[in-house]
Amino acid sequence: MSKWMQEWSTEAVGPHKLKIAERRVPEIGEFDVLVRTTAVSLNYRDKLILESGMGLALTFPFVPASDMSGVVEAVGKGVTRFKAGDRVISTFAPVWLDGLRPGNGRTPAYDTLGGVHPGVMSEYVAFPEDWFVAAPKRLDAAEASTLPCAGLTAWFALIEKGHLKPGDRVVVQGTGGVALFGLQIAKAVGAEVIVTSSSGEKLEKALALGADHGINRLSEDWVERVYALTGDHGADHILEIAGGAALGQSLKAVAPDGRISVIGVLEGFEVSGPVAPLLLKSPVLQGISVGHRRALEDLVGAVDRLRLKPVIDKRYKFTEFNEALAHLDRGPFGKVVIEF
Amino acid sequence: MSKWMQEWSTEAVGPHKLKIAERRVPEIGEFDVLVRTTAVSLNYRDKLILESGMGLALTFPFVPASDMSGVVEAVGKGVTRFKAGDRVISTFAPVWLDGLRPGNGRTPAYDTLGGVHPGVMSEYVAFPEDWFVAAPKRLDAAEASTLPCAGLTAWFALIEKGHLKPGDRVVVQGTGGVALFGLQIAKAVGAEVIVTSSSGEKLEKALALGADHGINRLSEDWVERVYALTGDHGADHILEIAGGAALGQSLKAVAPDGRISVIGVLEGFEVSGPVAPLLLKSPVLQGISVGHRRALEDLVGAVDRLRLKPVIDKRYKFTEFNEALAHLDRGPFGKVVIEF
Amino acid sequence: MSKWMQEWSTEAVGPHKLKIAERRVPEIGEFDVLVRTTAVSLNYRDKLILESGMGLALTFPFVPASDMSGVVEAVGKGVTRFKAGDRVISTFAPVWLDGLRPGNGRTPAYDTLGGVHPGVMSEYVAFPEDWFVAAPKRLDAAEASTLPCAGLTAWFALIEKGHLKPGDRVVVQGTGGVALFGLQIAKAVGAEVIVTSSSGEKLEKALALGADHGINRLSEDWVERVYALTGDHGADHILEIAGGAALGQSLKAVAPDGRISVIGVLEGFEVSGPVAPLLLKSPVLQGISVGHRRALEDLVGAVDRLRLKPVIDKRYKFTEFNEALAHLDRGPFGKVVIEF
Amino acid sequence: MSKWMQEWSTEAVGPHKLKIAERRVPEIGEFDVLVRTTAVSLNYRDKLILESGMGLALTFPFVPASDMSGVVEAVGKGVTRFKAGDRVISTFAPVWLDGLRPGNGRTPAYDTLGGVHPGVMSEYVAFPEDWFVAAPKRLDAAEASTLPCAGLTAWFALIEKGHLKPGDRVVVQGTGGVALFGLQIAKAVGAEVIVTSSSGEKLEKALALGADHGINRLSEDWVERVYALTGDHGADHILEIAGGAALGQSLKAVAPDGRISVIGVLEGFEVSGPVAPLLLKSPVLQGISVGHRRALEDLVGAVDRLRLKPVIDKRYKFTEFNEALAHLDRGPFGKVVIEF
Repeated sequence: MSKWMQEWSTEAVGPHKLKIAERRVPEIGEFDVLVRTTAVSLNYRDKLILESGMGLALTFPFVPASDMSGVVEAVGKGVTRFKAGDRVISTFAPVWLDGLRPGNGRTPAYDTLGGVHPGVMSEYVAFPEDWFVAAPKRLDAAEASTLPCAGLTAWFALIEKGHLKPGDRVVVQGTGGVALFGLQIAKAVGAEVIVTSSSGEKLEKALALGADHGINRLSEDWVERVYALTGDHGADHILEIAGGAALGQSLKAVAPDGRISVIGVLEGFEVSGPVAPLLLKSPVLQGISVGHRRALEDLVGAVDRLRLKPVIDKRYKFTEFNEALAHLDRGPFGKVVIEF
Repeated sequence: MSKWMQEWSTEAVGPHKLKIAERRVPEIGEFDVLVRTTAVSLNYRDKLILESGMGLALTFPFVPASDMSGVVEAVGKGVTRFKAGDRVISTFAPVWLDGLRPGNGRTPAYDTLGGVHPGVMSEYVAFPEDWFVAAPKRLDAAEASTLPCAGLTAWFALIEKGHLKPGDRVVVQGTGGVALFGLQIAKAVGAEVIVTSSSGEKLEKALALGADHGINRLSEDWVERVYALTGDHGADHILEIAGGAALGQSLKAVAPDGRISVIGVLEGFEVSGPVAPLLLKSPVLQGISVGHRRALEDLVGAVDRLRLKPVIDKRYKFTEFNEALAHLDRGPFGKVVIEF
Repeated sequence: MSKWMQEWSTEAVGPHKLKIAERRVPEIGEFDVLVRTTAVSLNYRDKLILESGMGLALTFPFVPASDMSGVVEAVGKGVTRFKAGDRVISTFAPVWLDGLRPGNGRTPAYDTLGGVHPGVMSEYVAFPEDWFVAAPKRLDAAEASTLPCAGLTAWFALIEKGHLKPGDRVVVQGTGGVALFGLQIAKAVGAEVIVTSSSGEKLEKALALGADHGINRLSEDWVERVYALTGDHGADHILEIAGGAALGQSLKAVAPDGRISVIGVLEGFEVSGPVAPLLLKSPVLQGISVGHRRALEDLVGAVDRLRLKPVIDKRYKFTEFNEALAHLDRGPFGKVVIEF
Repeated sequence: MSKWMQEWSTEAVGPHKLKIAERRVPEIGEFDVLVRTTAVSLNYRDKLILESGMGLALTFPFVPASDMSGVVEAVGKGVTRFKAGDRVISTFAPVWLDGLRPGNGRTPAYDTLGGVHPGVMSEYVAFPEDWFVAAPKRLDAAEASTLPCAGLTAWFALIEKGHLKPGDRVVVQGTGGVALFGLQIAKAVGAEVIVTSSSGEKLEKALALGADHGINRLSEDWVERVYALTGDHGADHILEIAGGAALGQSLKAVAPDGRISVIGVLEGFEVSGPVAPLLLKSPVLQGISVGHRRALEDLVGAVDRLRLKPVIDKRYKFTEFNEALAHLDRGPFGKVVIEF
């Protein structure tokens, strides 16, 4: 094991500050594992944190990114869940193991990797064993790295909270990382999936991935199309990714007793919508911010048994981190991943 | 049984059109029951329908009001659930017996008494037996008439959907009919109840009814007070009655994994709020519009076994219907009821 | 429409009493529909009722069988859900529309077609419109007739009550009608399915239908095999069809927080099992007796959207009712259906 | 802080081996807290383990008992949840923090204090901070020590799993520690509580504690009495403590869609019952073995806010451990506690 490693970090919030540093491979404590990173998957949030800090108490030099796959190199003497050679993936919010979210009403928990906790754009990380989950057996490193945030968010919304069932009608807004996981997971559970997008080309690709219907948001009234496609039933579950006033459209499109999962970046914007459908159809509206470790383990099991393949728009090299970040602004179809 | 009866009705939407008419007591069909009305409880919605029609397909002459108690006078030959002499209360949305709501995404069901279906401001009504529930044994006629809409809305939000449990912290906004039922039901289940109001006098009365804490919305920052009263935990359940931009405050006050039940009149207004707490605390936000018959039966059982007494602000006579309607505009403390 | 029709009926409980009678096509009431039967699907329970009465208050002449598909011939003037020409299927327990079961603790509801209510082995039936559901569009009459009892039982256990999710491990005991629906529904939802049987030939057919694993109960210890196939995890859901002391094996095979759905004929037998796994793994053990109409509608929607094909072991003619009943004793692979 | 302490321990399984030993106060690791014990509450299971080992991999000298309250004396440098002076109670199954149970199908987790983990009949214990919960503010040390096992078991069955609601009818079998917590918690949530016992004297005391009805199992048919008390509805929830063939009675007494929580000692015995009510009433039958830490925190909050007082039959001194154990055989009314 080399004593030195490379990692991307920055000394201050703001664009254009990132550089590769040479640092010592970290030491591990009694309950830690040392993991050699094999891939990192990016989220738009990584870019927001680098640009604005998002109000988080970051530690500098700050290493960005939260989602990784890797191989265990060494374990502390108190470690029981892993051994050297195990393939693992990280968890996004590492103290949330199962059940209710940590934090309180005044101060919601947002203690994630690549934020309050250190990031993973590093050749090695040393974290408590509790922060990792066994990687799926059937995915390569890049694919596996997409599960902790994008995969789990879609799974947590549709399955853990949404109890999606065969025959349900699901609207997935867009074709980003969470959206395409939503499409794949909803199809896996036997749902009928309607994808909306402003790009005809992306809709074609979504249909090729298994979507039952595509709606071009620019040229069609998507709510009317959902009524038409479902015989006026509406959508049993909507993955609401746009947020803002678009929520009003989702409230119109949702079926009685349906569910709207609000998923989006953590900017200061508002959600708003008319109260009549909220009352008369009584949908559940729930914000979803990733999920707990147990659900990630469920997702890993499902991915293996269903041979589900995450959609990667482009794979970049370790040295191409800036190019990969820039790709996020262009609206990738699925995930953007760095291979180490 | 008299062949003629009196009922309040109107020939057109708009204020000041209501009058008492003399009409024949209706005939009953095979599955109907004839019920002599003993009390009618008013909701603000009754006033809105009389004034604007609320976009509903009303039949004229239109008899207003939806919530009644009465005594069965006669039953059709196919009737099995009731017999003459039984004390009953009406159901608000009579085709919704249990489980999921009727209607679809495009056209939410709003087929209620005193709306699409006939109202109950009549000395006798003849409705299908399925539209009634046995009245609680321990309440008088006026008290019993408050359950179908105000009582059930609070119960459906807190118990049927909310699974409230002992020790939970509940914020009840205001001191109207639904709010005071919310207070009483939440106390019955062992919750800690915080009432907000713009009236110090009403807060005193709410405390006398059992509320643990009162917050004056005008002189205090209620979100900060909720944090203080709960050690920053926040509210496990908020009965959100104000709606509109006030929802943003509720999103701040709610605990992680908490629940906000949006309850309000069916005006065209918007709800809006910041997305960050919606995502990071992942509360369930659900509009509640009354509930199904089985839950009303559960509420009746609970009312009897817990000796819960609905709060009636004032009882009016049959001839004082206009005065009772006018009372609704003054923000009653609990319910306004007409005794027959 | 012919004025006369044929139906199978019996004047008394006991074998060998069934015969075809010529009777008048029934009249319909205000809320009834007249349905021309196109297929009837048999359940083992039909045989038990004919042989023993099962303690039910039957009316003679008794027409057996509960599950049918047909075409609406005429509707009463109060009917709103169907019109002539509609393809429909029956519901097994017609008063149970949604939500909680009817009946009470002392006297559980068992008011089903072909039992307390009339049966369907008749060329025409006239029942309330509430007793029917629109047939799936993609199934023929024989296939559609298998949904009301066998299909719904599996769906109710796995989906409505069990919230089965992708990647879950399901054990299906046997290859009868409910079991094969269980296999197909579990596969549709992305679960991993293990079928147990005492017949190697049937296991081969179950694997061809999509089962992931087959266990021969005669030659293998099925609990040990389930441990081996799941890495000691156990089964997340077991469709327990054998009952009796076999429940003890299921308690051993179930995963922590798993679910055992007990499904079986209504003989007087006992279930029993060791208390230690019941306590330490805390599984939910729930008897399942078919389900409500709303769930049948969900199943119909799922069948259409998933193109799920019920498995029919053999199709008989109307005149071959006795031969079809005899087939039930030989352990059919899937369903036995009479085509009209 | 003294360097030496006293603790009860034994060198081998079997009666009459227990003695008080003088040992060094343990050292604490980075994430541990040192707690001075103030009270220990006994469970019948403590006796079974001392007498038979219950098949567990015990470490000798073995210190018995699992439920304690105490005061934090010192904390490791990585500890964040507690500080010196905090009043705490232990958790029974310390690795189960929230959500699903640990363990797997083959090997259910039973890693509890006073079992696989060390016990608490010691003046000081040094455990990871995760193993403790803040004690309720309104209970003395003896009362607080009764929550981790008996209190949490009743809470987990009725509230966390059972979602008990006002007006529900609950049958509590017996008057032991779990049973009396069940009585008190069910009353706190507004349920109607029926207690069964073989002792008229204990029934009187249960009624004085708030039970609505008492049934003497020796002189009455308790199932018939439950029917009579509930108008044939049956029991919505039964705390089944006897186990064995008694389960058959509970299956008869339960309401449709009701719940039977099986709670009992971990002997090898069987549960058994008739299948007909299991199918036709479709109750949920679930074994309950204590619960997770988050639910214990919920219980502590509820105890404080409801001013719930655990029932202690008798308080013993540290030196009277053998007398306290002997008391367990005589069927205490509530809990037996050792005060330090």
